[in-house]
Amino acid sequence: MRAGFSFEVLAVDSATSARVGLLRTPHGDVETPVFCPVGTAATVKSVSVDELEATGATLCLANTYHLMLRPGADRMERLGGLHQFMQWPRPLMTDSGGFQAFSLGLAREHGVSKIGGVFPEEPSQAKKSGPTARKGTDKGKLATVDDDGVTFRSFIDGSMHRLNPEISIGLQQKLGADLIVAFDECTSPLSDHEYTREAMERTHRWAVRSLQAHPPDRPQALMGIVQGGAYEDLRRASTRYIASLPFDAFCVGGSLGKNKSEMHQVLDWSVPDLPTDRFRHLLGIGDVDDMFESVQRGIDSFDCVLPTRFARHGNLLLTPPLGRPANRFRLNVWNARHAEDPSPVDPSCGCPLCTRYSRAYLRHLFQAQELLGIRLASVHNLWFMQDLMRKMRASIRTATFASLKAEWFEPEAHGRPRSGPQSDCGPA
Amino acid sequence: MRAGFSFEVLAVDSATSARVGLLRTPHGDVETPVFCPVGTAATVKSVSVDELEATGATLCLANTYHLMLRPGADRMERLGGLHQFMQWPRPLMTDSGGFQAFSLGLAREHGVSKIGGVFPEEPSQAKKSGPTARKGTDKGKLATVDDDGVTFRSFIDGSMHRLNPEISIGLQQKLGADLIVAFDECTSPLSDHEYTREAMERTHRWAVRSLQAHPPDRPQALMGIVQGGAYEDLRRASTRYIASLPFDAFCVGGSLGKNKSEMHQVLDWSVPDLPTDRFRHLLGIGDVDDMFESVQRGIDSFDCVLPTRFARHGNLLLTPPLGRPANRFRLNVWNARHAEDPSPVDPSCGCPLCTRYSRAYLRHLFQAQELLGIRLASVHNLWFMQDLMRKMRASIRTATFASLKAEWFEPEAHGRPRSGPQSDCGPA
Repeated sequence: MRAGFSFEVLAVDSATSARVGLLRTPHGDVETPVFCPVGTAATVKSVSVDELEATGATLCLANTYHLMLRPGADRMERLGGLHQFMQWPRPLMTDSGGFQAFSLGLAREHGVSKIGGVFPEEPSQAKKSGPTARKGTDKGKLATVDDDGVTFRSFIDGSMHRLNPEISIGLQQKLGADLIVAFDECTSPLSDHEYTREAMERTHRWAVRSLQAHPPDRPQALMGIVQGGAYEDLRRASTRYIASLPFDAFCVGGSLGKNKSEMHQVLDWSVPDLPTDRFRHLLGIGDVDDMFESVQRGIDSFDCVLPTRFARHGNLLLTPPLGRPANRFRLNVWNARHAEDPSPVDPSCGCPLCTRYSRAYLRHLFQAQELLGIRLASVHNLWFMQDLMRKMRASIRTATFASLKAEWFEPEAHGRPRSGPQSDCGPA
Repeated sequence: MRAGFSFEVLAVDSATSARVGLLRTPHGDVETPVFCPVGTAATVKSVSVDELEATGATLCLANTYHLMLRPGADRMERLGGLHQFMQWPRPLMTDSGGFQAFSLGLAREHGVSKIGGVFPEEPSQAKKSGPTARKGTDKGKLATVDDDGVTFRSFIDGSMHRLNPEISIGLQQKLGADLIVAFDECTSPLSDHEYTREAMERTHRWAVRSLQAHPPDRPQALMGIVQGGAYEDLRRASTRYIASLPFDAFCVGGSLGKNKSEMHQVLDWSVPDLPTDRFRHLLGIGDVDDMFESVQRGIDSFDCVLPTRFARHGNLLLTPPLGRPANRFRLNVWNARHAEDPSPVDPSCGCPLCTRYSRAYLRHLFQAQELLGIRLASVHNLWFMQDLMRKMRASIRTATFASLKAEWFEPEAHGRPRSGPQSDCGPA
């Protein structure tokens, strides 16, 4: 990696490819595997940077797409960059902006989300395929791809904007995160083999242009992105090509298939061909099961909005034995059975919510639409994620990753019944 | 005052009736004059109890009306009371519930707020007078008064509820605040002399019933409320009567006139006849000028939602020299001139917002509708209020209250021009 950065693998699990590593950056160290909270608009929603640090977070991701539109990269640069602006003292990463530009265009045309599911909030769009305008507008597609880049409409005011490798890298240089990402085209899970191949080839040409736009003397690390959809030949080809380029680190991105098992396949086709001495980030993944499956395949890092989005909907993440596959490791605080419950959300959790407040109070805050509820729930869910990553790192160091995974996913095998006194935690 | 409570006047200003006092309660001491943040639904909106304590807040008010409807007083009692529920370790006060029950009925009929102003959010109601239904409902009046109490509709689900002295005191006993308030009828500023007199006489009968419902062996202090609208004869009569009853402390409540000068008159008719050795709270007041005028007339305590409501609208309170009568001591963070301003909202402020973040970042958070913006602004405004009270207490101790007031309201006399380098802080 370039000056100011290094990545070292410190331990590898005996039975899997899970590994513990240490990423060093100009803004401090990151132990891996790591979960990166997403601070889309230069703030992790509802959470202060002090609260974020207290969860144990070390690396935080912000979205170039949102920040280029508001407050703007030039303005951010004049204000001293993203670290200064949002007062996050530790390592930061930005994405290329491509995913949002494409996902607000192509993915919505296909009515699907990043990994296969249909957009739940737009059922009328779900069955559509082929090029259609976003519902409620008559101004045509939200994003148009050409061989140079993408033109898209702002989600804020509908104004037209352009991203290509040089523009994306230039924006990320101005934002000033420690880790920046090459510009790529993210296809939809419903894109066919031919389109996915074309998009992958564009992504490869854009990878070279991204590297040219960010020479080795620049102070930020540049990450390449593997694409290729859920097609084995394309994923393998993309991995080999991107891994051959002089990137400082790598991301696995794009469509990860129509369901979780396809996603695990995609990782099996990608990760083994990435250089073992480089930091490997999986973009946009954060479900508990996906994180176990990915870490075991050698992924070092994740970012995801799910923990904070769950929190805003009153879904609180639970560690075993309260959390189980049957309840998807979640408690729904809106449930009436919590209305007079003086116990904490999770007595095993050390977060500010669980060490101080009752389920009854948290439910009341949600019912009364009080912002403190969203905040306490967000901090809890981020605390849960960091705690999970700490446990994963410890298990890898002691070669017990498989038994940690079994503890979470096979509770019967560990003498913990699926139902019992904790059965009040229904599916969220 | 009853066991566990005491109030002592420690210093009186030489030129005015402003005084410094010490209120002792079972949950700690309160130096007066004091500003009480309002935690309507058992949380000061968007602010944690730790942040609230850091502002210097010592006494916090919660609303019986909201809490009786959600989560309910019985439930609150079973959960250990308000202190335990919301985890505020310091003194708490509840109001009687009457103000909201009446204000959502009678005041809206008259289209006015507590002190004279027309409801800005309901212009179509502003000119109406006499009994009319609340706009958008056809279910009749929101509140109906009789000699025993008031029947009103829940703002949550329209269900019917009843408050009278015994019910209000019973609810407040279950909520468990340190200071509770007698049940009273709060009239509208547009109520005529005859109606205001009738309501005052009801309030006096209800005061006696409130005292009977809360005998001296109960552990909470009970506060009487002076009513009488903005009519001199009624205010003076109400003050003399309420002051003659064995209340532990007193509130000045009800309609305080159609404008600020009427409000100051109301205080002149009330406060001098309240016992000098009792704690005196002015309900629902929190504008900077009103606080100076009230403290100088001998008021010890205030509660008001304005600082947190201002914050949610992006209005940040400013200390002189940035804050001036001309800008109403406020900065509007939405103003485009702050978009690239790296300076803090108020460099003289020690709050978490001003010591860390730029105006540009705060404006960005508001523009992006990020909850952190509301929270940082709320903490700032509450910090401002506590800082103002600290300055008032210090000035009373040193007999310089008048010069503190002049510093805030006559900046020219203190060599500070009204316009100048700080003129970017326009009216909010």
